[in-house]
Amino acid sequence: MTRFKAIISYDGTDFAGFQIQDNGRTVQEEIEKVLARLNSGTPVKVHGSGRTDSGVHALGQVIHFDLPSLRDSEKLRFALDTQSPDDINVLQIEQVSDDFHSRFNKHSKTYEYRLTTTRAANPLTRRYSYHFPKLTKVDAMRDAAALLVGEHDFTGFTAAGATVEDKVRVITQADVVAVSSSELILRFSGNGFLYKQVRNMVGTLLKIGSGKWEVGRVSEIIAAQNRDLAGPTAPAHGLSLVEVRYES
Amino acid sequence: MTRFKAIISYDGTDFAGFQIQDNGRTVQEEIEKVLARLNSGTPVKVHGSGRTDSGVHALGQVIHFDLPSLRDSEKLRFALDTQSPDDINVLQIEQVSDDFHSRFNKHSKTYEYRLTTTRAANPLTRRYSYHFPKLTKVDAMRDAAALLVGEHDFTGFTAAGATVEDKVRVITQADVVAVSSSELILRFSGNGFLYKQVRNMVGTLLKIGSGKWEVGRVSEIIAAQNRDLAGPTAPAHGLSLVEVRYES
Repeated sequence: MTRFKAIISYDGTDFAGFQIQDNGRTVQEEIEKVLARLNSGTPVKVHGSGRTDSGVHALGQVIHFDLPSLRDSEKLRFALDTQSPDDINVLQIEQVSDDFHSRFNKHSKTYEYRLTTTRAANPLTRRYSYHFPKLTKVDAMRDAAALLVGEHDFTGFTAAGATVEDKVRVITQADVVAVSSSELILRFSGNGFLYKQVRNMVGTLLKIGSGKWEVGRVSEIIAAQNRDLAGPTAPAHGLSLVEVRYES
Repeated sequence: MTRFKAIISYDGTDFAGFQIQDNGRTVQEEIEKVLARLNSGTPVKVHGSGRTDSGVHALGQVIHFDLPSLRDSEKLRFALDTQSPDDINVLQIEQVSDDFHSRFNKHSKTYEYRLTTTRAANPLTRRYSYHFPKLTKVDAMRDAAALLVGEHDFTGFTAAGATVEDKVRVITQADVVAVSSSELILRFSGNGFLYKQVRNMVGTLLKIGSGKWEVGRVSEIIAAQNRDLAGPTAPAHGLSLVEVRYES
């Protein structure tokens, strides 16, 4: 048995998320289909570093899977890349030790949320960037993002029905980056994110960036641990999982 | 009668080009539909600075049209933008003099051709950037692009069936710009381009950039005025009309 780690990217538009489910096309299912074909029809189970929700993209999702024998990594990458559907790409594959696990090995993740801030939308980014022309207070949004950094209980920013018990997470980076005069990126890094946490943080920052709420609202939401105080969940199509980094 | 000039953008993926035709959805047709609605049902004819082919995008196409009475430009822009389909945006509208004509007024145009050069494609740019991982000689491609600048007969770079008689055009800019480690833009400006000229120039530059042809091939094609010497027409989806500039 040989274990492989792969870095993949996908356009989330036409997926019901990463993880296999009864209804809807998923990334995991599409990759498992190709791997089974490359494995003489024997099923291969794919494990991801975590789920991404329906409509969320990835530029650097990490998966792992086992094959019965050693393969040339680049040949395997090429086969998996070219035989996958057009909205999935395989950037890199390497052989890893048998105890590597994409989800359970300690890692941090970076997400980016793209905003198009021009009056009219941009037809070439509209699938991957949320058109939000009402940003008048970018500096306030930047100050509010900084308040998210650190170790906090993020109950106020997760979906109401989230089942995980411990909602304390560490955010190491929450930056507002002006990519051009027409595009902003909100970039978040941390040791783990709760269900819908990033999109709820973005929804809150957009309320602040459009002058509806004050900067301090972020601290109130963290302190109160109350989802009702946070902004609406920002649309999925602006969000991408850009990197998963493992401690070596 | 009041004449309006508008700057529009569109995702060319689902259009059979800019100009109305019997078969297939077109940009002109979609905009005329909305304008008629905004004009109490009376048809409004839209004129573009030029056609773009099926699948080609625009970030700054210019059109003009007439309405029977004066309108507030921003209200008109907003109405046209929001009532147009999602793959068309209206960036700017201004009232112009009655003798302005988007096509016949002297102007220059800038096109950009986007290339994704990484081994695997990028799922978030694949609709708007041609995946071409075989570029080993970017400097040669840059030198070859420079040979296109100037006044030349571009017969060798136009489609065989092109009907226009005078094939002399002036190219003022032909740059190869590295946007990131994974993306290149080929940018062409000039006083007019022949049918498929840009995509044929790109196809030729890609032959040179991948080491198949020498830099001097560009001069040979110009001198011989022979389409058979040029490279294949590069795919439409990498190309965008980014700007139309009028002499004032």
